[in-house]
Amino acid sequence: MNETFGDMGEFSLIQRITRSVIAGPQVSVGPGDDGAVMSVDGALVVSTDVMNENVHFRTDWVSSVDVGHRCVGGAVADIEAMGAVPTAVTIALSAPASCRVDWLDGFTEGVLAECAKAEVSLVGGDLSSADRLSIAVTALGQTGGRAPIRRDGARPGDAVAYRGRLGWAAAGLAVLTRGFRSPRALVGAYQRPDVPYGAGLEANRRGATAMIDVSDGLVADLDHIAQASGVVVDIDSGTLDVPDPLVAVAHATGKDPLDFLLAGGEDHALLATFPFGQVPALWTVIGTVQALDGRDPAVFVDGQQWLGARGWTHF
Amino acid sequence: MNETFGDMGEFSLIQRITRSVIAGPQVSVGPGDDGAVMSVDGALVVSTDVMNENVHFRTDWVSSVDVGHRCVGGAVADIEAMGAVPTAVTIALSAPASCRVDWLDGFTEGVLAECAKAEVSLVGGDLSSADRLSIAVTALGQTGGRAPIRRDGARPGDAVAYRGRLGWAAAGLAVLTRGFRSPRALVGAYQRPDVPYGAGLEANRRGATAMIDVSDGLVADLDHIAQASGVVVDIDSGTLDVPDPLVAVAHATGKDPLDFLLAGGEDHALLATFPFGQVPALWTVIGTVQALDGRDPAVFVDGQQWLGARGWTHF
Repeated sequence: MNETFGDMGEFSLIQRITRSVIAGPQVSVGPGDDGAVMSVDGALVVSTDVMNENVHFRTDWVSSVDVGHRCVGGAVADIEAMGAVPTAVTIALSAPASCRVDWLDGFTEGVLAECAKAEVSLVGGDLSSADRLSIAVTALGQTGGRAPIRRDGARPGDAVAYRGRLGWAAAGLAVLTRGFRSPRALVGAYQRPDVPYGAGLEANRRGATAMIDVSDGLVADLDHIAQASGVVVDIDSGTLDVPDPLVAVAHATGKDPLDFLLAGGEDHALLATFPFGQVPALWTVIGTVQALDGRDPAVFVDGQQWLGARGWTHF
Repeated sequence: MNETFGDMGEFSLIQRITRSVIAGPQVSVGPGDDGAVMSVDGALVVSTDVMNENVHFRTDWVSSVDVGHRCVGGAVADIEAMGAVPTAVTIALSAPASCRVDWLDGFTEGVLAECAKAEVSLVGGDLSSADRLSIAVTALGQTGGRAPIRRDGARPGDAVAYRGRLGWAAAGLAVLTRGFRSPRALVGAYQRPDVPYGAGLEANRRGATAMIDVSDGLVADLDHIAQASGVVVDIDSGTLDVPDPLVAVAHATGKDPLDFLLAGGEDHALLATFPFGQVPALWTVIGTVQALDGRDPAVFVDGQQWLGARGWTHF
């Protein structure tokens, strides 16, 4: 099908997105009205993320289905990172009139598949014309009566641990940037992050003191916890498992594989600090929280301030 | 100040936006963490709107302060249109690295001024690079235990009424399109919509049966109510007050002033149906809801199907 957005008209396109939506039991008004209405059990958690063409993705590197998965996964990871239970998303899609309807069908497929995986409902959104693709996703969640996990609660003596993947997406991007399509596992990890859904609530139940999701890079995001909590975080690089495909890509691209793990974002692993001995089973301990002792809040690697690549920033 | 986003860096820019934010008492975690956390009294209402440069606005027609006002006002109007009480917004701003920091300061000023007017808190957002300005606003609200007002509840015999402005923004846009800057009242109405905050809750309390905000155009948006409710809506054009500046602009541009009132959007008036005799004082009655009687759901003007301009659609 070669029909474009311009051929279809706004309201037909919106119907095409919403016709497959199955709203959860907490949703009393779904897509199609001025606003969606849903019940909230405990406090509401809300977070907004935007993904822009040629900034966050290139359409020749990720399929429309991938874009749908990525935009939902990245936004919902922020709800997980508050120790909350994700419930719903809204999506504002801006696209050129020349955008093909089959791109929209793939995007919708990816969005709804990732929503199903995350157990959230697509409750609303907006559709607008623009020069390039831009997707803003707002993710909603609820605390279920638990206190949310902020960035500022890390205490000296806490263990630092993560759950999910580190460096895979960055290595996949490095491969794509050089014009290759394999190793498939890494390229696939870049195209569709494997967000550890449920790990946020798990961390909350186990008394996590601070939490963030790794969207910019391990050191960059851990630095947010260090700054907010007023602590030094020391990572033991020996605890970071470097998977074989990452070693291969680092070798082929002349990089230190640790750069992928320490500075690679977009895998949306969850990174948290726990009271000593409280780290849940599936989390990997990678370091400790230390008192400042006259130092500025910072991230150390093997006892040294890390001066290598840190992670992505806009502007 | 001629500094650009590229000179400042992402996190300095975010701090520049959030430093003036005053969160309402229901907000327990404001901007700066992975997600915001707030209490919700009754069911949650959520709506997302996107505004793109050169589609929804031109930077030579609206100031940065205006853009801030417009994006918040347009999104919050959707919460009003559900008969709910607006509480918060999140904003995803995409901008080129060449964007000037004083544009951001003006935008932030407009956003926070409109938030104050609407009595909502800015609780979070995202900042990303992009080729052009794009702003996605998610507005949140609560029903306070009342049933939300949907589009599908209009019943034969109901009165149709609106509160706010009709046609002003469209006439202002017509003026700007022709290179003029006056009448100021109309240009100003286009630049900063005067959303009738509180009117949504007022309509809900008075038993409104259906409601929508006029973002695309009176006929276009009323048609959504007609379609969803399965009714014919008949507008009496004699009840539509045509202000003098609209008459002047229509005369100067060779248009029928009624076109501005019937097809002009972006004023974000609230449009609702009420049981006969229940229309609140500040609302203007403009028509009636009729049974289909063999007709398709539609909007009539003076008993005739309206064949003139209807309103804006993307694609």
